[in-house]
Amino acid sequence: MNSRERFLRACKNQSVDRPPVWMMRQAGRALPEYRALRKKYSFEKLLTTPELAAKVSLQPVKRFDLDACIIFSDILVVPEAMGLKLKYSPEISLKPPIRTKYDIARLKIPEVNQALGYVEHAMKNARQELGKKFALLGFSGAPFTLACYMIEGWSSKSFSQAKKMLYSEPELFTSLLEKISKVVADYLRMQMEAGADAVQIFDTWAGELSPGDYEQKVLPVLQELIHKLKSASVPVIYYINGIANLLEPAQSTGADVLGIDWRVSLSEVRKQLGKEQALQGNLDPALLLSSKSIIRNKVHEMINETKGRGHIVNLGHGLLPETPLQNISAFVQAVKDWKK
Amino acid sequence: MNSRERFLRACKNQSVDRPPVWMMRQAGRALPEYRALRKKYSFEKLLTTPELAAKVSLQPVKRFDLDACIIFSDILVVPEAMGLKLKYSPEISLKPPIRTKYDIARLKIPEVNQALGYVEHAMKNARQELGKKFALLGFSGAPFTLACYMIEGWSSKSFSQAKKMLYSEPELFTSLLEKISKVVADYLRMQMEAGADAVQIFDTWAGELSPGDYEQKVLPVLQELIHKLKSASVPVIYYINGIANLLEPAQSTGADVLGIDWRVSLSEVRKQLGKEQALQGNLDPALLLSSKSIIRNKVHEMINETKGRGHIVNLGHGLLPETPLQNISAFVQAVKDWKK
Repeated sequence: MNSRERFLRACKNQSVDRPPVWMMRQAGRALPEYRALRKKYSFEKLLTTPELAAKVSLQPVKRFDLDACIIFSDILVVPEAMGLKLKYSPEISLKPPIRTKYDIARLKIPEVNQALGYVEHAMKNARQELGKKFALLGFSGAPFTLACYMIEGWSSKSFSQAKKMLYSEPELFTSLLEKISKVVADYLRMQMEAGADAVQIFDTWAGELSPGDYEQKVLPVLQELIHKLKSASVPVIYYINGIANLLEPAQSTGADVLGIDWRVSLSEVRKQLGKEQALQGNLDPALLLSSKSIIRNKVHEMINETKGRGHIVNLGHGLLPETPLQNISAFVQAVKDWKK
Repeated sequence: MNSRERFLRACKNQSVDRPPVWMMRQAGRALPEYRALRKKYSFEKLLTTPELAAKVSLQPVKRFDLDACIIFSDILVVPEAMGLKLKYSPEISLKPPIRTKYDIARLKIPEVNQALGYVEHAMKNARQELGKKFALLGFSGAPFTLACYMIEGWSSKSFSQAKKMLYSEPELFTSLLEKISKVVADYLRMQMEAGADAVQIFDTWAGELSPGDYEQKVLPVLQELIHKLKSASVPVIYYINGIANLLEPAQSTGADVLGIDWRVSLSEVRKQLGKEQALQGNLDPALLLSSKSIIRNKVHEMINETKGRGHIVNLGHGLLPETPLQNISAFVQAVKDWKK
């Protein structure tokens, strides 16, 4: 069983020799070979040059022998493709912030192969390098999470402007989600056609909502999006940071795999959602700042909760840039050493 | 039934004419009369001058006719009293960060009446102004949340240093929590003796932990702390931002009232914890950026979930500085207009 087979079988909750493993934000700042490239090229240059993006995507897979390679990109490329001005330095900004129906009307629904063709080419490059031995993952921000960034003009502590629109003008908010969702659907379909074995939808900020608001205002758009994607038979992973109070609606999105953060145990998730639901997660990234033996114990405890079935091992959020390399190795090795 | 009686009866889950109402961070930046004072005095000056701190505490109660007055202070005064250097400008810092057993050993267990006597006097001043008509609340950061700030040297996106200690050196982490907890106990007892009708323990960051780590590493210290406090028969309110996955252990702290954020509905909390548990919360502060009619509907929906019994109406986190005054009034008025 090679890595790609293992990964795809885990997505479908089929038996595997051991659970597959990868890490959110595995490509990037934690790796010296990435930092070396960043001395030569700007972040934008790495993102938009297919050969370089593919190279960065492969770095962690080569170093740690992971089962899956996620394409190196950024969720803000979608708002940029919709017409916003994206800057990464001196600080991240996304302008102008989207606040009115006129702002929403001005947003473009781009031809993704043109506006985001560099991602398509990066995926094709990565696919070629990986062959069919390793799984290749595409991704996008979820409509809600992208809407948060677009309304705020990048990030925010409380997402108060995004919530103000959601609470005050729910129809306007929905129209924005629907417009973003169209682009996300095209974008993920493009990635699937370029060779993605699975795609992950990052709804990082959905955990900021009450269950009622999530169900009424976010879920319908997501259900439609995931329904559209499923005709391609490529597994869809749906991730929320802070999913504990949204487990049942998240399951009802129709995603094949749910990404779980560490604030809820996988056994509790299985209790609530049934053991047929494939899961991904869920070690606290800060745990990788501890030591090899602590990491090993925690990884084995975590896998024992699912018995390694229907479980893609991952962190519960992105890898921290300051994580020691030997601890990342210990994390991966612990998964490989796990015995049923 | 006056405001103080209403508040104290709600803490004990006794019948009331309507639920009492106050807001976390009600004293401060949202009010023009506070901003006017800040033009004359630094933040530190307002904190440490009892007459001024009492004045700021009373401002929102006078303007909005709230049921409770929380003393104007800051949770970082406890780390400062333990010997750390606290600065609020040009940015908040708390130095040196606590990382080793030597750092912990050097922390002082101060005589709170000396080190924090200005809070005692502010409470006495506020009590005198309020009489027995309004409830007066004291507060402190919880040991875990204060430990996070002390280890990081103020705030952090991921609290990775605090978690590194928690995961790598759990005994060291516990010794820090225990040392902080001693001071918090003395500090809250001092506030009770100075006239507090109830005290709130803010465990803002506990929601960043997995339920297992919370139960093993945070809960025992809290249980001991709250047990010590309860001999005074002054209600203890315990608040976590992101309590959804920690409801049962939070209840087992022994706190009289649990503060709930908006990410879980009060009816779900009642289902899990029983209707004898008094609750405080839980409107999303960002909802107060919407409009009077939306606020009114949401407030009534929320109170209907508890039928107004054993329920102190509040926000699920602190009032946002940009909240329009008329919307705060609408929030308070909606509580007063609620009919069983």
